[in-house]
Amino acid sequence: MELGKLFSEGKGKKLYETDDPSLAIICYKDDMRAYNGLKRGRAEGKGELNNHISARLFTLLAENGVPNHFVKELEGAYSLIRRLEMIPLGVKVRNFVAGSLGVRLGLPEGTRLQNTVVEYCYKNQELDNPLVNITHITALGIATMEEVDQMSQMALQVNDILQEKFRQVGVELVDFKLEFGRRGEGIVMLADEVDPDTCRFWDAKTHESLDIDLFRRNLGNVEEGYREILRRLVERDV
Amino acid sequence: MELGKLFSEGKGKKLYETDDPSLAIICYKDDMRAYNGLKRGRAEGKGELNNHISARLFTLLAENGVPNHFVKELEGAYSLIRRLEMIPLGVKVRNFVAGSLGVRLGLPEGTRLQNTVVEYCYKNQELDNPLVNITHITALGIATMEEVDQMSQMALQVNDILQEKFRQVGVELVDFKLEFGRRGEGIVMLADEVDPDTCRFWDAKTHESLDIDLFRRNLGNVEEGYREILRRLVERDV
Repeated sequence: MELGKLFSEGKGKKLYETDDPSLAIICYKDDMRAYNGLKRGRAEGKGELNNHISARLFTLLAENGVPNHFVKELEGAYSLIRRLEMIPLGVKVRNFVAGSLGVRLGLPEGTRLQNTVVEYCYKNQELDNPLVNITHITALGIATMEEVDQMSQMALQVNDILQEKFRQVGVELVDFKLEFGRRGEGIVMLADEVDPDTCRFWDAKTHESLDIDLFRRNLGNVEEGYREILRRLVERDV
Repeated sequence: MELGKLFSEGKGKKLYETDDPSLAIICYKDDMRAYNGLKRGRAEGKGELNNHISARLFTLLAENGVPNHFVKELEGAYSLIRRLEMIPLGVKVRNFVAGSLGVRLGLPEGTRLQNTVVEYCYKNQELDNPLVNITHITALGIATMEEVDQMSQMALQVNDILQEKFRQVGVELVDFKLEFGRRGEGIVMLADEVDPDTCRFWDAKTHESLDIDLFRRNLGNVEEGYREILRRLVERDV
């Protein structure tokens, strides 16, 4: 599969066309950004680690009934994926209070939430990715009610699958952000990435971060944290 | 009914105890505040106008199946109400884009929304009354899922009733904010106030504001706008 034209670049990934218009190649970058781009950095090897982790987690999710864009891992930081019409929403799932939630609602970091919190953010950098609810999403024409229902159900399913798997490897899944795309009429699929750039992983015993908070909050070596997540998944044969 | 101890005071109202612990007396104030208290003012007679308008609208709503705290109008700016255990949420219903929504979602003021937008704000001044969704509300223990369902249904019912009535008097109901309280087990009732302090009313022809935006945005005489709303309701025998 040849690397075609670059057609999309975000803070953590590049997307390239392929000979097949229904497929794309994803390249995970070593770049890091936080606080809406105000903090920038780079961790050598992060892209490749994210590629390995996302490949394993997307495979796990597909095996457990969550259709997603992953096709197969290529070399280094590259994977082959299905090309979807992306829905401009970030779907956040939270089991513990961390990051923006604590600030917004005045709750202490690390509090276990009484129920899973699901948030939708409208992906629009100019507007600072505002929190929206279902009535905003349909009023803005971002997605239909049926699509929101599908995303919400899949997000909770992903949470169940990942929480269980990560508990087995001594990691608490604090929260994560998903993105979805459309593949033909009425079919919504999980897309984007599932790795320490988009999930908060805490060591279950020490509560140390093994994710992008290492960079955001200067908590330690980013690459080591990501490598630890991969190591535990490999050890458990995920 | 004697005015007892003042037990609650907000930006627009005071609440007094009565001899009957299940009842309270509400006094609508002439004070005005905007932008989280940064802008302050006073409009002589506003409190009395709000009392008359809220009394009429609460009566209309009760007649149309929306149980609420209103009992009867007393003199001046005073009414007798049922005393409820208040739920610390502001429930906003929006038919057109105005105010914070336009800024947050980048939509032009006055755009008619494709569907009614319903928003919940957690009433907490320290946190700047943040937008919350149902999963936040239950996780914070603010209300149960059943209570949120009741509030949401009642809010849409209020919208239908008020939209129709105000169209008959040449006024467009742009948006409004409701608050609810508990009266015994499992019973949620509409409370607070329903008047130009909490509703945006635009003249259907000229699109002139007849509400608190007159003060917020220095658009004209506040008392005249409120009086015009009352005049149209009285004329139509609401």
